[in-house]
Amino acid sequence: MKPHFRKDIISSNWVIVSDERALRPNDYEYKIRCPFCPGREGKTPPEILSLPHKNKWLIRVVPNKYPAVEYEIEKKNTGEGIYRKEYLKGMHEVVVETPRHNDKIYQIKHYDKVLEIFALRMKKLYEKEDIEYVMIFRNYGIKAGASLKHPHSQIIALPILPLRVKDELEHFTDYLRKYNRCVLCDVIKNELETKKRVIDVSHNFIAFTPFASRFNFEVMIAPLKHNPDYYLEENFSELRDLISEIFRKLHRTIFNPSYNLVIHTSPKNAVDFHWHIEILPKLAMPAGFEWGSGFFINSISPEKACEMLKKEKRIKIH
Amino acid sequence: MKPHFRKDIISSNWVIVSDERALRPNDYEYKIRCPFCPGREGKTPPEILSLPHKNKWLIRVVPNKYPAVEYEIEKKNTGEGIYRKEYLKGMHEVVVETPRHNDKIYQIKHYDKVLEIFALRMKKLYEKEDIEYVMIFRNYGIKAGASLKHPHSQIIALPILPLRVKDELEHFTDYLRKYNRCVLCDVIKNELETKKRVIDVSHNFIAFTPFASRFNFEVMIAPLKHNPDYYLEENFSELRDLISEIFRKLHRTIFNPSYNLVIHTSPKNAVDFHWHIEILPKLAMPAGFEWGSGFFINSISPEKACEMLKKEKRIKIH
Repeated sequence: MKPHFRKDIISSNWVIVSDERALRPNDYEYKIRCPFCPGREGKTPPEILSLPHKNKWLIRVVPNKYPAVEYEIEKKNTGEGIYRKEYLKGMHEVVVETPRHNDKIYQIKHYDKVLEIFALRMKKLYEKEDIEYVMIFRNYGIKAGASLKHPHSQIIALPILPLRVKDELEHFTDYLRKYNRCVLCDVIKNELETKKRVIDVSHNFIAFTPFASRFNFEVMIAPLKHNPDYYLEENFSELRDLISEIFRKLHRTIFNPSYNLVIHTSPKNAVDFHWHIEILPKLAMPAGFEWGSGFFINSISPEKACEMLKKEKRIKIH
Repeated sequence: MKPHFRKDIISSNWVIVSDERALRPNDYEYKIRCPFCPGREGKTPPEILSLPHKNKWLIRVVPNKYPAVEYEIEKKNTGEGIYRKEYLKGMHEVVVETPRHNDKIYQIKHYDKVLEIFALRMKKLYEKEDIEYVMIFRNYGIKAGASLKHPHSQIIALPILPLRVKDELEHFTDYLRKYNRCVLCDVIKNELETKKRVIDVSHNFIAFTPFASRFNFEVMIAPLKHNPDYYLEENFSELRDLISEIFRKLHRTIFNPSYNLVIHTSPKNAVDFHWHIEILPKLAMPAGFEWGSGFFINSISPEKACEMLKKEKRIKIH
């Protein structure tokens, strides 16, 4: 069965059904030879781009071998009784961030180049027909759903605006109409005034624990100056420094935390947006309450999390 | 800090901040003496009710010792710059389902009584002032966020309609206005016609893999006849038989699957609803894509999942 989109009829959920994804390797549960390590380049589809370094490579971008979405399909909308299946175009790429299998994100010195390649690919994918949203994310650790240990991120270009992004976009738009200001600009101003949740501020960026953090030690990083599009960003070495510092603090405070990192950038043709990075540590597993209700219980207040990260005091929680 | 509600300003997320939850015991990660086993009744707050059996107990309902919400608080709404904190009344209970520490759900012969006690407590809690929604859920296994192994479920009575329930309610209401029929009644009709996703049907209930399943082997159980409120249900021994059969199949097909079971019942004063049970196995962990986008990749089509469950053929997936 080709990957396709299904919309639920009882909820607003969108689901991608992709049987091929079940075949993807997992080196947390089974011992495998890492397909991203140097010397095994043939294990991935041919490179989209790579950053060379002393006759070798430093960063590679390749198509995902087990894609959730595909571009070379025929668009169609088929019915099945009261349901709809949509075959839509999308793209799914992998960024292998370093040749070094065991590096943590803050140990990758050239992460500024990784961040720049994210911007480059994002811009390119937004130029494609049928692509409405480009999502970049990094899964680290088994609790965060990572299936391969080798440092990598994923880029998914989608033909539909995802629910969560649509929701954020609506809030940005409503706030702009009501106050004629950007909601995230106001959040940043508020955080800089109260200082209760600010972990670090650099010349162009802020890192803070959001007021309504869903997860323990959740962190948001955003540019101080209004900028809707991540791919228009220019200060990648400064951004790398801040990201590295935040992850150094997370790793000092929590033992080897699983996490997801997600870049939220403006959808195509949005009225307003302000790009930001969400870092979502997965210490406790979301449970029936979260899945059933769609709202979250956070057992460490963002103010306390901020204080603990600043002090870098090792904690033991569950 | 007393448990309280925070509404995000950039998204529609609600978060409960409850520092006390961080203190709760976890016997997956640390060896502890089970607080739910017979002889350790003093480890829980005093019983709300219990079902006696031969001078002992068969089922106990107790307040959650580490509640996410509390009823005995002063309602207030406090500001913090552009944010709001809401101190609202709620209740959080635990149902210890059996004295036997290691029983799987399908091994609990008196599960009809457990289901009946759910209905009893649900009805009671709906009678309380300020309670808008009563959610009942069961977490099993570490991937599903369970912290204690002893068979138990949780009941949370909430002062706010959770996002996911609100979303379902809107779909029920819209469908009713448009077609003058219940959307889940139509889904059930469709499933019975096509048979592609029906695992089992009894006199009063159906179990099927939903068309837009978010998770591998997701199962929905619903009454065949329209009924908004779970607590008005009467056929608990028939429901127990079907639930047991589904979990026997899940355990035969997948090795010891982690899962969440959630009962969706009608909110207070809803225009229309049709109660149902969601069984959400957690084989793969939701990752950055799911958390960032709010939509899901399912690597096993519901049609295939249904077929595999019916055949009960043991699989190995990741």
